[in-house]
Amino acid sequence: MLRAGMIRQSSAGIYSWLPLGFRVLKKIEQIVREEQDAAGCQELLMPTIQPAGLWRESGRYDDYGKEMLRITDRHDRDMLFGPTNEELITDIFRNSVKSYRDLPQLLYHIQWKFRDEVRPRFGIMRGREFLMKDSYSFDLDYEGARRSYNKMFVAYLRTFARMGLKAIPMAADTGPIGGDLSHEFIILAETGESEVFCHADYLGFDPSARGVDYDDDLQPVVDEWTRLYAATDEKHDADGFASRVPSDKALHTRGIEVGHIFYFGTKYSKAMGATVQHADGSEMPVEMGSYGIGVSRLVGAIIEASHDEAGIIWPESVAPFRVGLINLKVDDSATTEACEQLYSELSSSGVDVLYDDTHERAGVKFATSELIGTPWQLVVGPRGVASGVVEMRSRTGNVDEEIPIESVTSRFTG
Amino acid sequence: MLRAGMIRQSSAGIYSWLPLGFRVLKKIEQIVREEQDAAGCQELLMPTIQPAGLWRESGRYDDYGKEMLRITDRHDRDMLFGPTNEELITDIFRNSVKSYRDLPQLLYHIQWKFRDEVRPRFGIMRGREFLMKDSYSFDLDYEGARRSYNKMFVAYLRTFARMGLKAIPMAADTGPIGGDLSHEFIILAETGESEVFCHADYLGFDPSARGVDYDDDLQPVVDEWTRLYAATDEKHDADGFASRVPSDKALHTRGIEVGHIFYFGTKYSKAMGATVQHADGSEMPVEMGSYGIGVSRLVGAIIEASHDEAGIIWPESVAPFRVGLINLKVDDSATTEACEQLYSELSSSGVDVLYDDTHERAGVKFATSELIGTPWQLVVGPRGVASGVVEMRSRTGNVDEEIPIESVTSRFTG
Repeated sequence: MLRAGMIRQSSAGIYSWLPLGFRVLKKIEQIVREEQDAAGCQELLMPTIQPAGLWRESGRYDDYGKEMLRITDRHDRDMLFGPTNEELITDIFRNSVKSYRDLPQLLYHIQWKFRDEVRPRFGIMRGREFLMKDSYSFDLDYEGARRSYNKMFVAYLRTFARMGLKAIPMAADTGPIGGDLSHEFIILAETGESEVFCHADYLGFDPSARGVDYDDDLQPVVDEWTRLYAATDEKHDADGFASRVPSDKALHTRGIEVGHIFYFGTKYSKAMGATVQHADGSEMPVEMGSYGIGVSRLVGAIIEASHDEAGIIWPESVAPFRVGLINLKVDDSATTEACEQLYSELSSSGVDVLYDDTHERAGVKFATSELIGTPWQLVVGPRGVASGVVEMRSRTGNVDEEIPIESVTSRFTG
Repeated sequence: MLRAGMIRQSSAGIYSWLPLGFRVLKKIEQIVREEQDAAGCQELLMPTIQPAGLWRESGRYDDYGKEMLRITDRHDRDMLFGPTNEELITDIFRNSVKSYRDLPQLLYHIQWKFRDEVRPRFGIMRGREFLMKDSYSFDLDYEGARRSYNKMFVAYLRTFARMGLKAIPMAADTGPIGGDLSHEFIILAETGESEVFCHADYLGFDPSARGVDYDDDLQPVVDEWTRLYAATDEKHDADGFASRVPSDKALHTRGIEVGHIFYFGTKYSKAMGATVQHADGSEMPVEMGSYGIGVSRLVGAIIEASHDEAGIIWPESVAPFRVGLINLKVDDSATTEACEQLYSELSSSGVDVLYDDTHERAGVKFATSELIGTPWQLVVGPRGVASGVVEMRSRTGNVDEEIPIESVTSRFTG
């Protein structure tokens, strides 16, 4: 990513997103947003700086340790840069919702978080300042909470599928809460930082969850996806793994966590007094869950899952540009005219094009284009232009053909 | 805004944007983005937390005072929550651009900033954590810098005009840099915190800058907009005001600053060694300017400029919803069916609708709708539905008519 000019580190674990990287980040963010909206989750935005008082109410101010970036403002008040938002959303909830009539509620935001890691590593995969989507569900009872959990489970399958990722939901630790409502969504990758164990058949599952209706009972979808063995090392059970997975299907590898969904019941609502009145008049703490996706981390995870020696191979849905337009001879007026014509036609048809009109050699241009990884390359040179054709190549190598210049735009819009 | 449920304060000067307020914030952000893009400015994203080292290079670490939120990380490194980004963007520039061939450059980002105000006030107008769009220009010489400045000048006129605001560019202080290249864009409002003096004819100017071509010379547009007297109190010259403005045109009032553009030459590039090689081989510090728009502040400024006693009157371009759909009798199945039909038709045609299907009395629903300020209200009741009509009212009060139910959608899409 550094080589491709996508990001630049400003201090340990803190990055600037240069125009190319920023486009990818925005596309990923938009897919996450669309799938949250589709699941009936409402977007809001909480600030980065939070008052320590709320974290004292939940008891996490002292528990959180040195990963929390603690700040003192000019009036000597204790503040912090939010590593997550359970406390703040619970505070918003308790001040606005009082009755069972206003439940369920699913709320999310996409905001920069900070965790002061001792040794930030894996570039943006484990940076200190990172962009995260976090959702929170509020329900009257466990059954409602489970429905909210299932919605997020399915939304996550769809979200990662749209980015070309095979994310496997793995049983994850629930801590003192217990139960089975905690899953990490993990991309298998040997460079990943988590050790994982799972059934190989997961790799053949279709995660697109096409035609799902969020008003339906989603339990069958969740059951199908949790039927086979899949667990992180925290939850791994060697005997269960051996008995449930035939040895030729047993995958023991590493992975990258890209999402985590978690039901935690009344942990925060009890501590912070977030109660709702039930139909029978009783006041009970609301049932909650939280659901995170590492938006900036996903940029790294997608690259990890899709690259070769020459560089990145972007899935079309998140590519910074769909087409790389390569002018092989900038000095040749016919070639440059053809390129400019193509650039203007494609752009005005809504196709994102990155035009290489530098004076570099062809080899350098090809290498740059492959490093950046646009899904398509259009190679325009004097000989082709003379006979009315350009070369169209896919980054994956599956397509490489000469096509008439006048049919280029329709190839990308048709 | 608090009453309308748009925001909620989490600590002094720090707010959460609830779903309604968030929608307005996003619409304003998107208008700002589109006009920056149209002017040829490239978007990137710098982090909120910056290393103190860069600010020591520019000399501002000690100068900035208590408004800078200073932070020490777990390794005792001095960091800060960026109040602005001149240092960081200069660092990015000096590491990636070396030659006159890569100039000019116009870069921007839209990111949360923090200024630790002693007494945060005016709600989100002068909060501590605020969303700002800041652009930076890099040019070879003064003439180039002036062209960049003019681009941003025109982009700002267009940006504010799209939000229904009359923003007047006023001569502002340039500090030790001197010259005339600093303007604050100010909305006149008696509650504003700046004292301003200007010619009343500005209020009749058309700021839409329609059909502008950013490749043209924009000096005539800038000249037209700076011909008459307009200055903040810092730059006010009582004699000049008296001689240049007839007394019946002399406005002495208050205003809200929503944008500031500023040419500062080589102030940062010299201090931080951001040089470029000119065509003659010489190395010179690059000429810079910075250009800010207060995105979150604009939400407050628009409300200040457009409200009545009942609540907010949103311009259509930034309204959280375009239409408020009011069901007068939720228990009546024909009325509710008509409402649901309208809601689904309008939504699927891309019209943002806020549907009030609560059990409140009609009077409460009208009051809520006027407080929230959707530009249009559709009032659906049993009598109207029986004769196939609904009431369509504009928030401004200019339109109030009965229209056939089947023509509603085309009124909003046609």
